[in-house]
Amino acid sequence: MKTLEKTNEAQIRELTQRWLKAVHARDAAAAMACYADDVIAYDLFAPTKVTGAAAYRKNYEMWFECCKDGPASYEIKELDVVAGDDVAFCRSLNRMEAPGPNGKVEESWLRVTVCFEKRSGAWKIVHEHVSVPLDMETQKGVFQFRA
Amino acid sequence: MKTLEKTNEAQIRELTQRWLKAVHARDAAAAMACYADDVIAYDLFAPTKVTGAAAYRKNYEMWFECCKDGPASYEIKELDVVAGDDVAFCRSLNRMEAPGPNGKVEESWLRVTVCFEKRSGAWKIVHEHVSVPLDMETQKGVFQFRA
Repeated sequence: MKTLEKTNEAQIRELTQRWLKAVHARDAAAAMACYADDVIAYDLFAPTKVTGAAAYRKNYEMWFECCKDGPASYEIKELDVVAGDDVAFCRSLNRMEAPGPNGKVEESWLRVTVCFEKRSGAWKIVHEHVSVPLDMETQKGVFQFRA
Repeated sequence: MKTLEKTNEAQIRELTQRWLKAVHARDAAAAMACYADDVIAYDLFAPTKVTGAAAYRKNYEMWFECCKDGPASYEIKELDVVAGDDVAFCRSLNRMEAPGPNGKVEESWLRVTVCFEKRSGAWKIVHEHVSVPLDMETQKGVFQFRA
């Protein structure tokens, strides 16, 4: 039982690294290979929800198109993985650097929750939630890390 | 196996209803009974993350204090539950009505992901992620449902 759990966690970490590699390569097809077709995502920007991998892929394509004139970096920090035999989730704070509207490189911290199901023996992302918190005064998104 | 899975899902739905009842009663202690002590939450407003049930309880107390002069409503919509034997998660769009700054009742749609672990035989919330998406132009939170 202990060994099996370890294996599941290792598989989720491996999938997470595969996803990260796809992001670094700005490869939407490779990123989407991590997802189930029926994924539902709550993404950083509106709409409220994105239904299905085909729709979510468009968000990736737009993101990669925006960042194509690097330098850009993307790191996964504070990754916690909890994995059962068929259901798993992870959370992390993802640190991104990319040029802002004025061309200056800006740092962003995204809160990311990813939920997985093992389907036909392979882990797939079935739900993802990406956000920044709001500032209570301005109602604007807080991209800097705020303790 | 099938029966056991069903039982786990039923337990998660029951816990979710208990949490909702606590919200309706504005009872922070009852709400916190659903959480593990070491919960990490990504909440609607900054900071970036909230570590531990004692800290998260303060968010509930502030929320309930804000809404104490109802009318207010809180409903869980589009609830999906995926439950294994020891790990589970659910996602939902939660619809809230409460008086805004001008006293007029306003509708909010929150995206909520909740992750659970079974510990000593009882399900506990170990991670929670609550957000609204941002408007890409204004960078402000979008509280209305946006398709």
